[in-house]
Amino acid sequence: MIKVGIVGGTGYTGVELLRLLARHPEVELLAITSRGETGTPVAEMFPSLRGSVDLKFSDPKDAPLAACDIVFFATPNGVAMQQAVQLLDVGVRVVDLAADFRIQNIAEWEKWYGMKHASPELVAEAVYGLPEVNRSAIRHARLVANPGCYPTATQLGFLPLVESGCVDLSSLIADVKSGISGAGRKAETSSLFSEAADNFKAYGVSGHRHLPEIQQGLARVAGGGAVGLTFVPHLTPMIRGIHATLYARIAREADFQQLFESRYAYEPFVDVLPSNSHPDTRSVRAANICRIAVHRPQEGNVLVVLSVIDNLVKGAAGQAVQNMNIMFGFDECTGLSQIPVLP
Amino acid sequence: MIKVGIVGGTGYTGVELLRLLARHPEVELLAITSRGETGTPVAEMFPSLRGSVDLKFSDPKDAPLAACDIVFFATPNGVAMQQAVQLLDVGVRVVDLAADFRIQNIAEWEKWYGMKHASPELVAEAVYGLPEVNRSAIRHARLVANPGCYPTATQLGFLPLVESGCVDLSSLIADVKSGISGAGRKAETSSLFSEAADNFKAYGVSGHRHLPEIQQGLARVAGGGAVGLTFVPHLTPMIRGIHATLYARIAREADFQQLFESRYAYEPFVDVLPSNSHPDTRSVRAANICRIAVHRPQEGNVLVVLSVIDNLVKGAAGQAVQNMNIMFGFDECTGLSQIPVLP
Amino acid sequence: MIKVGIVGGTGYTGVELLRLLARHPEVELLAITSRGETGTPVAEMFPSLRGSVDLKFSDPKDAPLAACDIVFFATPNGVAMQQAVQLLDVGVRVVDLAADFRIQNIAEWEKWYGMKHASPELVAEAVYGLPEVNRSAIRHARLVANPGCYPTATQLGFLPLVESGCVDLSSLIADVKSGISGAGRKAETSSLFSEAADNFKAYGVSGHRHLPEIQQGLARVAGGGAVGLTFVPHLTPMIRGIHATLYARIAREADFQQLFESRYAYEPFVDVLPSNSHPDTRSVRAANICRIAVHRPQEGNVLVVLSVIDNLVKGAAGQAVQNMNIMFGFDECTGLSQIPVLP
Amino acid sequence: MIKVGIVGGTGYTGVELLRLLARHPEVELLAITSRGETGTPVAEMFPSLRGSVDLKFSDPKDAPLAACDIVFFATPNGVAMQQAVQLLDVGVRVVDLAADFRIQNIAEWEKWYGMKHASPELVAEAVYGLPEVNRSAIRHARLVANPGCYPTATQLGFLPLVESGCVDLSSLIADVKSGISGAGRKAETSSLFSEAADNFKAYGVSGHRHLPEIQQGLARVAGGGAVGLTFVPHLTPMIRGIHATLYARIAREADFQQLFESRYAYEPFVDVLPSNSHPDTRSVRAANICRIAVHRPQEGNVLVVLSVIDNLVKGAAGQAVQNMNIMFGFDECTGLSQIPVLP
Repeated sequence: MIKVGIVGGTGYTGVELLRLLARHPEVELLAITSRGETGTPVAEMFPSLRGSVDLKFSDPKDAPLAACDIVFFATPNGVAMQQAVQLLDVGVRVVDLAADFRIQNIAEWEKWYGMKHASPELVAEAVYGLPEVNRSAIRHARLVANPGCYPTATQLGFLPLVESGCVDLSSLIADVKSGISGAGRKAETSSLFSEAADNFKAYGVSGHRHLPEIQQGLARVAGGGAVGLTFVPHLTPMIRGIHATLYARIAREADFQQLFESRYAYEPFVDVLPSNSHPDTRSVRAANICRIAVHRPQEGNVLVVLSVIDNLVKGAAGQAVQNMNIMFGFDECTGLSQIPVLP
Repeated sequence: MIKVGIVGGTGYTGVELLRLLARHPEVELLAITSRGETGTPVAEMFPSLRGSVDLKFSDPKDAPLAACDIVFFATPNGVAMQQAVQLLDVGVRVVDLAADFRIQNIAEWEKWYGMKHASPELVAEAVYGLPEVNRSAIRHARLVANPGCYPTATQLGFLPLVESGCVDLSSLIADVKSGISGAGRKAETSSLFSEAADNFKAYGVSGHRHLPEIQQGLARVAGGGAVGLTFVPHLTPMIRGIHATLYARIAREADFQQLFESRYAYEPFVDVLPSNSHPDTRSVRAANICRIAVHRPQEGNVLVVLSVIDNLVKGAAGQAVQNMNIMFGFDECTGLSQIPVLP
Repeated sequence: MIKVGIVGGTGYTGVELLRLLARHPEVELLAITSRGETGTPVAEMFPSLRGSVDLKFSDPKDAPLAACDIVFFATPNGVAMQQAVQLLDVGVRVVDLAADFRIQNIAEWEKWYGMKHASPELVAEAVYGLPEVNRSAIRHARLVANPGCYPTATQLGFLPLVESGCVDLSSLIADVKSGISGAGRKAETSSLFSEAADNFKAYGVSGHRHLPEIQQGLARVAGGGAVGLTFVPHLTPMIRGIHATLYARIAREADFQQLFESRYAYEPFVDVLPSNSHPDTRSVRAANICRIAVHRPQEGNVLVVLSVIDNLVKGAAGQAVQNMNIMFGFDECTGLSQIPVLP
Repeated sequence: MIKVGIVGGTGYTGVELLRLLARHPEVELLAITSRGETGTPVAEMFPSLRGSVDLKFSDPKDAPLAACDIVFFATPNGVAMQQAVQLLDVGVRVVDLAADFRIQNIAEWEKWYGMKHASPELVAEAVYGLPEVNRSAIRHARLVANPGCYPTATQLGFLPLVESGCVDLSSLIADVKSGISGAGRKAETSSLFSEAADNFKAYGVSGHRHLPEIQQGLARVAGGGAVGLTFVPHLTPMIRGIHATLYARIAREADFQQLFESRYAYEPFVDVLPSNSHPDTRSVRAANICRIAVHRPQEGNVLVVLSVIDNLVKGAAGQAVQNMNIMFGFDECTGLSQIPVLP
């Protein structure tokens, strides 16, 4: 049993962490903080947790975070970079579900996130928490930067192609669709039911913060060299789920189905579907799985990869728990064996 | 470990049974049958089960159902009444998730279901599987009639009032709203997305099959005497969930909040909310829970009870597993501790 | 051609007024105001209006409202009661789509709306804008209080029964379901897509502001005497639409189908469906129609009336235009002949 | 006034044609046929039409189609090619909303549609009904092949780029998302609410029938030469709407915003949005408009065009009425000035 704390538990990644951690056999939940909701029982805000989570939100400055083995930051961007260092200094390991430690190039991060980085020295130490790429580094990490939702679906879909050098790296396209929970639980007009339901739209076409994160990740596995990527995010009227439709020009022939199956043969949370499959997002709803299919339409020179995850699980809280399992030497699947909810 | 079979696994109650049973620590899934899909891997039809269920659908006549300890019928009405008897004869216990054994009055059943009953003698033996009323009878039952979804939400909401004699039994009203999965997985025009989405409607106002089931259940706990009930079902554009809004005229004063809390104090799957609460259906999504709130608007003489369940879990598959747990002496919560999925 | 102004055009009733008025052959749109959006082209905020509405939002104090023949207030409660008087004083007629002038009893209004009324003298003059009841008074009104959405659906459903004295007035029940646009376009957590989608819930069971409005309306047509009404509003995951399910105990026998058909025979915007019908909300989507069906389940002593409207049209903007047509002597259907959008 | 008939009116394009034609000032609806629903009032099947359409479905062989000036085929593929010739022979003009006359290459058509073509000679005569390309030919056409929904959104988005020769024609990508009504009103499991809601998926990645239609259309305006197109259709959980996200590599520099604005300056139903816009599908809901935005992310060498239509209007029935207006010399906007329904 390890002691676990959560900083910032009033958003969707917070409640999802609680759903997973409350049933995790190796975890004792010690504290969950919220400045605005101090004293409120967690189950009052999230009635789904009635009977499962008895904690109240505590004030960040009173919470026994230093007594935890690990603390998750489920906070807006810019919080963990301020607060993680104190915890690390007293031996607490940290997983940040926001973006503070994802981008190694500080100038790049500051450009996209519009603020000065408070802990550049920690960025260098932070391990990017995509287990399918960085498992051994995660094991020993003090500080893990949990990947974004779009980057998880997109990188897992491109990975076998980029690692193997089969595709033209200068012209990748990622057309990605997200459920509305990806926009978080903030009260914003654009996320209202009557605005988002029965509607579909692209956004951020000129540039989205997840673009440099994906490019950095792909460049690494490509063995350096720039990656030319066009990334277009969209909002689709469903609560959970990301569907990445990825396009790559073939540079070298291969058995692409076999390439994907081999690459992920021993990955517990990546499922390569049979040829000619079309994964739907509900096939991963509420579970820590990425399902992938690879197509070559009309036997042409373009590959189409379809990659789906639940943005709140494999795209956020589930992956964070997976990283925790790795960091503490638990079986990687502990507490993550939920079957997707369908229908 | 007990051996379990499912007859008719291609509908929503079938896949939901599989989701629950595949992770149940006391269960070995032996067979799941489907005449139309014989030989198809279950996970091909329901990709959410990939990696969790390796079975193929088998032909009903070849399946090792007689070797099971218990068989669930997740079939249309009229199937279990034909086939249950052979299984019972060889010592297999049976839970029918359809309506064949729910109504004790055979003539009444035949009127509402429009067919001749094939096993009237079994109806008398069958135990109505609402654990909150019939727990001890269920323990020893060979044959359990799993309640309907509307009847579960409605009876649990009315139960404390009717048992205690606090309300006028002649003028109960149940205005109940169901998600579309309640209509099943049959390809019918009225259940199409483009017909059911962004739409709300009542149906079956002149009479619905769940009316006699609810009346029978309430009459029993009322100590006999007819129950006057107006029952209006509606379809609401969501996948899962039932919300019963129940109206009863007060016949005798009481502390109604206390009445509900006492009645369900030891029920693991009924959660009475604090005064002035409004349960939402998502607070029970994908979990075996009924959440209830009781109101007395404007301190008048009408009580309003709000009762929510997931129609596929506490309203079908979850309740069936709960019944199985009781029948075989397992802890009643075994395999049913999933936390609701929110958002 | 009359000159028309709108105060407060950034909400859903505002954009719906614009949709209707922009195609109204007798209307010239002179001004639409918004303090927060002064200078923004209306079609920038609502791209659906591109090519149809060229106005910009103007500052309320600069807008040529006094030059209008009629001004619609599509503002939050409490605005029109401050500003209507200046317009009325210079001969502008006013329709308030908020609640400021709906309740004749000032004390009652102040209790439910939690503020002091600024123009109690205007309340007495204001005409409640339900044309099916008050058509002739509306014709000559300077100030019309446009009814709420729940009250419109509920009153139209109960009207024939209450007017005719066929039902017990002490035990009426209105179980009403609204699409989420009824909550407006304010950025509130509870109206977020990820909170409201795939979910159903009641709210305000202990008391909702539309209760006294409905009671006042029914009491008037009942010829005085109190009306006992239990009113439970619910939110259903669709954008537009209200479905009222109304329950009344029969006090005197009648041909109820005939009663409804006669009552509404000459009403252009109320459609009584044939016996045994179940109106769905999409059958009135985006149109100024109320469709009603009346049932007598199991030939018992309870009548069930189903009444559907689009909350933004017959429940708000459409009814306001209908009132304008009456006030200015236009054919009542002018500009309101849109066919519902289905699917 | 012209006399109009509809063959096959029980699907979504049928009811949408009725919605538009019933208010068209130059149209008299003479007949609507349905083999299966002969004798049923149209408004009984589609209650949205109560009070607006008094016709009953008539048997195809009895209907006065030969007395019509124009007949719309809103039938499945393969019907119009059998029946159009008789009507054309007696001077009736025909618009086919299905695919029978869209593809000039008969062998290609037969491959994709899996049947032998019954009227290859008519294919040569048929005019492809995309007014923005073929307006003058449509004016004189006896037989118009109304474009598919995906092809309309995709061609209008690519048109300025392909006509001007600014982009590499060998590597076009169309990632297109459709609402579920695009699958029609047939009762199929995959179109059920509980299958399609809260879900997103691609389909037909290996090849979809609209691929050759789009390629044919783009090749024509490119001045011949093959067009290399990867086309991936998706289903998104909304009723109406298509969102095409189009990718093209720049071959020659230009002011792309200006290019689009010039191309569509005089098109009444194509709206080019300002730079950096993201059209949402609801901004065209229920209206005959295509809205387009063009982007050049990160000032790179890939253009991204966003193109939205309502699949049932500009993607089907609305475009058919637009074609009718052209064919009969009416103002092209007659009966098509509905403002989109938002929210």
